[in-house]
Amino acid sequence: MNRPLHALLLAAVFATAMPVAASAESAVKIIAPTDKTITPSGTWSIGARAGDFVFIGGMRGTDRVTGKMVDGDEARVRRMFDNMLAAAEAAGATKADAVRLTVFVTDVAKYRPLVNKVQKDIWGDGPYPPRTVLQVPALDQGDIAEIDGTFYAPVKK
Amino acid sequence: MNRPLHALLLAAVFATAMPVAASAESAVKIIAPTDKTITPSGTWSIGARAGDFVFIGGMRGTDRVTGKMVDGDEARVRRMFDNMLAAAEAAGATKADAVRLTVFVTDVAKYRPLVNKVQKDIWGDGPYPPRTVLQVPALDQGDIAEIDGTFYAPVKK
Amino acid sequence: MNRPLHALLLAAVFATAMPVAASAESAVKIIAPTDKTITPSGTWSIGARAGDFVFIGGMRGTDRVTGKMVDGDEARVRRMFDNMLAAAEAAGATKADAVRLTVFVTDVAKYRPLVNKVQKDIWGDGPYPPRTVLQVPALDQGDIAEIDGTFYAPVKK
Repeated sequence: MNRPLHALLLAAVFATAMPVAASAESAVKIIAPTDKTITPSGTWSIGARAGDFVFIGGMRGTDRVTGKMVDGDEARVRRMFDNMLAAAEAAGATKADAVRLTVFVTDVAKYRPLVNKVQKDIWGDGPYPPRTVLQVPALDQGDIAEIDGTFYAPVKK
Repeated sequence: MNRPLHALLLAAVFATAMPVAASAESAVKIIAPTDKTITPSGTWSIGARAGDFVFIGGMRGTDRVTGKMVDGDEARVRRMFDNMLAAAEAAGATKADAVRLTVFVTDVAKYRPLVNKVQKDIWGDGPYPPRTVLQVPALDQGDIAEIDGTFYAPVKK
Repeated sequence: MNRPLHALLLAAVFATAMPVAASAESAVKIIAPTDKTITPSGTWSIGARAGDFVFIGGMRGTDRVTGKMVDGDEARVRRMFDNMLAAAEAAGATKADAVRLTVFVTDVAKYRPLVNKVQKDIWGDGPYPPRTVLQVPALDQGDIAEIDGTFYAPVKK
């Protein structure tokens, strides 16, 4: 059965905005980039939906269009969180659905207070997700912070 | 409809001992501190229940009352595990329900044997959960070890 | 009721090849080593199945028989991925079921390109799982890379 052209075009549009199966045999839905998320350049995806859970890949404070690191430490950390939340949003999860945040920084004494400040801006008076802040000796492109986020957002049935 | 005072007091008691919803819209239950767990001071929670899974935030070997790091390397590592297990217990998960442990230490050669010893004390002859031990250059407050734990404890229906 | 000897022997054979319960009270199934996986020597297991999810412990590029690190950086990284996938396979999960990969390397500038190359060999043109690559100051046995993998592979009903 042929599908009309407008249906194919519609499918193509949605294909860039909705999670797609990792393979015909897998139940994993890889999250495709949207006009709110960054676009990965290498051998990784921004995230995946697995049943009721959403896993987001390591996010940094890069501009979604230029791919460059945002200027200013606080703005960089804020963008890191926004990039993570945009990827989660693309799979139907919000900041209230976060169940694990792991933040990797190159100087824990210097950047932990900044992470706290930005989280207070985003989550207000809480509740806040469980979190771990860790120091690492270096990040990709000499960046200062990177975040891993896991979310729980059951699919409405 | 007014609720009698003793019902409100009862509700207040339970509110500190049972997971609460992260928000009206979210299915995540944030784990509230109990008289067995530490109490977070900042923008994070000790853990969250998400369906059948329990995610515990980064735990270190701090005293639950004073917030200070416990004296002695082995006692510190032991307390780290106990703090994690107390938080998991508050959401109905036990040591046998652990599915991923990630242990971050500031000296892998020095502290890995200590982690092994303490785990043998706690889990006996096993089986042991999957685990990763990683060296990091520094931890919060100059501590020596921190742990992330994930548990699977289906809610009884 | 006595079980005949051959049934006991058969049970023993299967016991080394199939996930076993972490305890009588837990729903977690610890993954037992197979003739494709490494065999842990210490207080940890290669992985666990928790409902529809499979969590694999930290894997490095070691030979499954000798336990020694494989020679050559690329071969080492390749073996690391193969060891992780063999453990996942023992619980019924494949590379298309990966939902989170965290790769820890001792030099991000040097080993990230190698990780990319090996992932391209394994996952072809994708889609690729969400991933985070992090630099750490040291790994067990002075190794160069270690990986944590999480998979989603619903049990067929």
